[in-house]
Amino acid sequence: MSGIAEVAALAGVSKATASRALSGAGYVSEATRARVTDAAEQLQYVPSTHAVGLATGRTKTIGVLMPVISRWFFAEVLEGIQAALLERGLDLTLYQAPPATAAREKILRELLVRKRIEGLIAVGLEPTDPEWERLSALQKPLVAIVGSSPRASVVAIDDDHAVRRATEHLIALGHRRIAFIGGDGRADSPQVDRNRFAGYRDAMADAGLSDSIAHIHSPVSLPGGYSAAVDALAARDRPTGLVAVCDEVAVGAIIAARRLGIQVPGELSVTGIDDHEYAEMFSLTTLEQRPRLQGSSAVELLLDHIGDPGKPAVTVNMKARLIVRGSTQALGVSAAARATRA
Amino acid sequence: MSGIAEVAALAGVSKATASRALSGAGYVSEATRARVTDAAEQLQYVPSTHAVGLATGRTKTIGVLMPVISRWFFAEVLEGIQAALLERGLDLTLYQAPPATAAREKILRELLVRKRIEGLIAVGLEPTDPEWERLSALQKPLVAIVGSSPRASVVAIDDDHAVRRATEHLIALGHRRIAFIGGDGRADSPQVDRNRFAGYRDAMADAGLSDSIAHIHSPVSLPGGYSAAVDALAARDRPTGLVAVCDEVAVGAIIAARRLGIQVPGELSVTGIDDHEYAEMFSLTTLEQRPRLQGSSAVELLLDHIGDPGKPAVTVNMKARLIVRGSTQALGVSAAARATRA
Repeated sequence: MSGIAEVAALAGVSKATASRALSGAGYVSEATRARVTDAAEQLQYVPSTHAVGLATGRTKTIGVLMPVISRWFFAEVLEGIQAALLERGLDLTLYQAPPATAAREKILRELLVRKRIEGLIAVGLEPTDPEWERLSALQKPLVAIVGSSPRASVVAIDDDHAVRRATEHLIALGHRRIAFIGGDGRADSPQVDRNRFAGYRDAMADAGLSDSIAHIHSPVSLPGGYSAAVDALAARDRPTGLVAVCDEVAVGAIIAARRLGIQVPGELSVTGIDDHEYAEMFSLTTLEQRPRLQGSSAVELLLDHIGDPGKPAVTVNMKARLIVRGSTQALGVSAAARATRA
Repeated sequence: MSGIAEVAALAGVSKATASRALSGAGYVSEATRARVTDAAEQLQYVPSTHAVGLATGRTKTIGVLMPVISRWFFAEVLEGIQAALLERGLDLTLYQAPPATAAREKILRELLVRKRIEGLIAVGLEPTDPEWERLSALQKPLVAIVGSSPRASVVAIDDDHAVRRATEHLIALGHRRIAFIGGDGRADSPQVDRNRFAGYRDAMADAGLSDSIAHIHSPVSLPGGYSAAVDALAARDRPTGLVAVCDEVAVGAIIAARRLGIQVPGELSVTGIDDHEYAEMFSLTTLEQRPRLQGSSAVELLLDHIGDPGKPAVTVNMKARLIVRGSTQALGVSAAARATRA
């Protein structure tokens, strides 16, 4: 493999000039830059990033922090970030940092401090105050995905608003006994779950349905939604509408309803949030998130911040489109249909 | 933040000596090393890996290549790799390289060549011959996960054998009309899908059931298995047993059967491979894969290769345990039970 010396010799310049021309750091005339670039191309020269890093301070690496990888939303966001970075020839260093773990502590105390990254994308990280201090001390641009923050630029849907729309959709269909399913309602549960519950609660209150507010606790997963719904739907005064914290919980609830012989949507309407890859198969009415687009948008925003360190933090609100499918219907429609048929 | 100069000053040595003491490269007396280490600790000095990389050739970074991130097996393997690397203070650089894409070409041609990694883990990558040549040219240790290869160390279950056991389980239960579901049977489909089909085909042939061999084609996903099964199970001469290429396809088939009013396991037995997080909820009989353990085992094996470049390639066969749950039962049991009840 050719080195910078060969490139410099072919271009007829010094090694230092060749290095400046290729790294973009420091002045080189356009003619010289073109000559060096041609030589590098001809020799298939690929610069070692160690040297590039030291010479220009640029490592061409972005760090990605997330509490979990193996859930649909996070894995899709990661694919979106990855594709956007690859397009630009940037590397992705991944850090899985579950809340309150030794791994997270080590990442924030040791690994990030090595300074081999140019910027950070934090996905659903929800840093504590001391963690925010550590992140700020890095003095690297940071963009968050999910939630909201006064301390960093954010790319996210408005969770509160999305669930409010799902709830209002059910209310408009005539439902009154509407329960929220997913999460555990604790003050230390993820902000996103709490915001989503708040959207439901406020929509119910605004419609004069405060007395009907009910939270079916469940892990935020498909099996979690299934187990919780099997119990909750067996009750005599079961709800006619379920607003789920996400599509996986919604799908779990639909499978539970089928198991119990409860017709969806005839006897139970269900909404989700995500437009998960299973949503269509279960004909799920949902608010669409586009996690890959959130990932690529975060990359663009981060590169803006890297290019312009003075740029103030912004919040990019992604639109969450309501997709109405077959899991919701007006209350009483199937009873009326049965009466007509009889 | 303190630099190497402050550490050297506090320890009373030159910068070069301090650097040697901290990087482990080159001779330094034990007493000096201890003094420098103490000084570094006192000043909370964290070396920049740029400098460490140049001085010692060690970047403390492992590259991970995978065609997809957002499928259960891959995301779980990635979490296993991540945890094992974090424990050792190593960074993970992620490259999503779907087959036959410009992104993959760019990763192999440009990004990996930057040489900022000490070794590679390739998960289900199935490189073509020219791709193997590029990977070999890197002269970095490589461990593969999934499948088999004469060219590298591999951590994997024996796919052929696992599906053979699933098929034999159904045959032992008295099933004869057993179909394989998942994948498209094409010569260019992933090796793992072809190996799994081969395990089914051979087990059927060994039991004298060659005439009953049937392949229901489907995308390797839950919705894929669902759609294919809805069609295949509507046929009058439908199978009594289904061997699925993986748990997601198996669960899709079970959901399809329920939709069609076909009892599982009363009228249809289904097996999977994975022990996916949904397996228990669907009471799925399956062969257990432990993707996190495969990830951490690959890290250990890779570090062996990095520590001992002469170590020959090995294949680590992970055991795939048969977990019998409620989705399989002896043929005719429910018919007999119905007869008794009548």
